Amino acid sequence: MKSKNESFRRPVDAEARSAARMLVRTARYGALALNDVENDTPMVARAGLATDTNGMPVIPVSSLSGHFDSMVKNGRAALLIGQPGKGDPLSHGRLALSGVVRRAEGADHERLRRRYLARHPQAKIYIDFKDFSLWRFEISSASFIAGFGSAYVLERADLETKCVDWEEWHSMEAGAVEHMNEDHRDATCLYATKLCGGTDGDWQITGLDPDGIDMALGDDHRRYAYDEPLKRAEELRPTLVKLVSRARKQSEIS
Amino acid sequence: MKSKNESFRRPVDAEARSAARMLVRTARYGALALNDVENDTPMVARAGLATDTNGMPVIPVSSLSGHFDSMVKNGRAALLIGQPGKGDPLSHGRLALSGVVRRAEGADHERLRRRYLARHPQAKIYIDFKDFSLWRFEISSASFIAGFGSAYVLERADLETKCVDWEEWHSMEAGAVEHMNEDHRDATCLYATKLCGGTDGDWQITGLDPDGIDMALGDDHRRYAYDEPLKRAEELRPTLVKLVSRARKQSEIS
Repeated sequence: MKSKNESFRRPVDAEARSAARMLVRTARYGALALNDVENDTPMVARAGLATDTNGMPVIPVSSLSGHFDSMVKNGRAALLIGQPGKGDPLSHGRLALSGVVRRAEGADHERLRRRYLARHPQAKIYIDFKDFSLWRFEISSASFIAGFGSAYVLERADLETKCVDWEEWHSMEAGAVEHMNEDHRDATCLYATKLCGGTDGDWQITGLDPDGIDMALGDDHRRYAYDEPLKRAEELRPTLVKLVSRARKQSEIS
Repeated sequence: MKSKNESFRRPVDAEARSAARMLVRTARYGALALNDVENDTPMVARAGLATDTNGMPVIPVSSLSGHFDSMVKNGRAALLIGQPGKGDPLSHGRLALSGVVRRAEGADHERLRRRYLARHPQAKIYIDFKDFSLWRFEISSASFIAGFGSAYVLERADLETKCVDWEEWHSMEAGAVEHMNEDHRDATCLYATKLCGGTDGDWQITGLDPDGIDMALGDDHRRYAYDEPLKRAEELRPTLVKLVSRARKQSEIS
C-alpha cells in the first residue's frame, strides 16, 4: 500500500515547506484526533489554535472535556489544519500533523498563554479557569495535501522554527510585540496590507519569532515570513525597520 | 473523570437533536479520525461529506490515500462536523461522531454516488476512478457541543432517519428529485428562500428523505426538516405541494 501512495507523493521543496508552515502559523482552529484510552477507538475534537515561537501548535483544553484523559494518558495525537474554500472540499490544501501533545508548565505556559490570547482575545474569559491547561503539539511528521493528487510527506524539521538562543528570544518577544502595538501600528498596518495582502485596518502584531511576524485584524490572521530566518534577537529591530521601507516601496509600485 | 464530564452534560431534548441533525445533513466536509493500523497512532484526514437517506454520513475515499488501509482493516472511526463562525472557535457548535465506516456496494453504492454528486458536482471528475470507493459512516454515538460549556451525548437514534419501507422510498427518490429539479424549480426556490432563509437563486434539490428536503445553491447547502417525518413514499408529493402554500404564506407575512 505504501508503494501505491508513492504515486501522488512529490519531493518536498521550499514552496511546499513554506505553504505548509503558513497553514500552521495562520490556522485559528483545527481537528484534534486522539485514541480514546478507555476503549482504543478514535476520537476527534475541535481545537482552538495558536503556535509557539518554534512553530508547534498550541491548544487549550479543559479537563472537563471528553478527550482530556487521552491527552494525559496517551499523548499520541493528530491534528488537521486548513479550511476549504469554495467548491470541492477535497481540492483545497490541508495538513495532517502527527505527533504527541505535551502539557505546558511554568515559563512555557506563560508564553503559550500570552501567544494564544494575542490571537484569541475572547479566550481570556476562560483560559485561567482551573480546569484549563495549555498543550503544545510536538510535530513528528506531517502529510501535506496541497491540492487534489498533490501530496507531500514532511518531517518536523520542515515545519520547525529554529533559534540559536531561545532564552534570549523569549526574554525579548513580549516587550517587542507590546512596543510595536503601542507605538508602531502604522508599520504593522503596512506589513499586513502591503506585504501580506490584508485589508486596511487596525492590525496588531500577535507574535514575533525568528521566521516571521504574526498579525491579526479580528479573525483575519496573517503572517509575513522573512526571506531568511533571523539568527538572534538583536536582528529583529533592524529587520522590522527595513521591512517598513520595503512595504512603502511596494506601496509606490502598486 | 466521567463524573466530572457530567457537569456540562445536558439532557438531550428535541432542540439539541434537531440542531445536531441539521449539522450532519448540511455539512459539506469534516475531519475523519482513524487509528493507523500500522502503528496504532491517531490519524486524521479531510473528508468530503454528503448523507445517505437515513442520515448517515457518506465519504468518498481513494485507495491511494494514507488512511484507506485503516478504513479497510479497522473501520472504527470518528468524524468531526461543524464550522466555526466569527470569533472564538470554541464558542461555535460542533458534533463529534463515533462509529465505524463501511464500504458501500451495489445499489447502496449507486445511491450514495448519486447523492454525493448532487451535493458535490465537481466530484464527477474522479468519483468513478477505480481507486475511489464510497463509505458510509455508521454512527454509534455522538458528542454534540452546542456552544461553550453546553454538551450533549447523543445516540444513533437521535440522528438516524427512519422509514417503514426503504426499498419503496429508494425506488422513488431519484425520480422525484429529477422531477422537482426539471419542472418545479420555483417551488424549490420558495422552500429555500422562504422556509430556510436562503438568498434568491437557482436552488436545486439534492436529496429527499422521510425527514426533510436537502437543497443547494452552489456551496450553500440547506435543509428543510419536516415538522413530522413522513412514513411512506406516497406522502412526499402532497407534502411538497402543501409546503409551497406554507412558503407563499410566509412570503406574504414577511
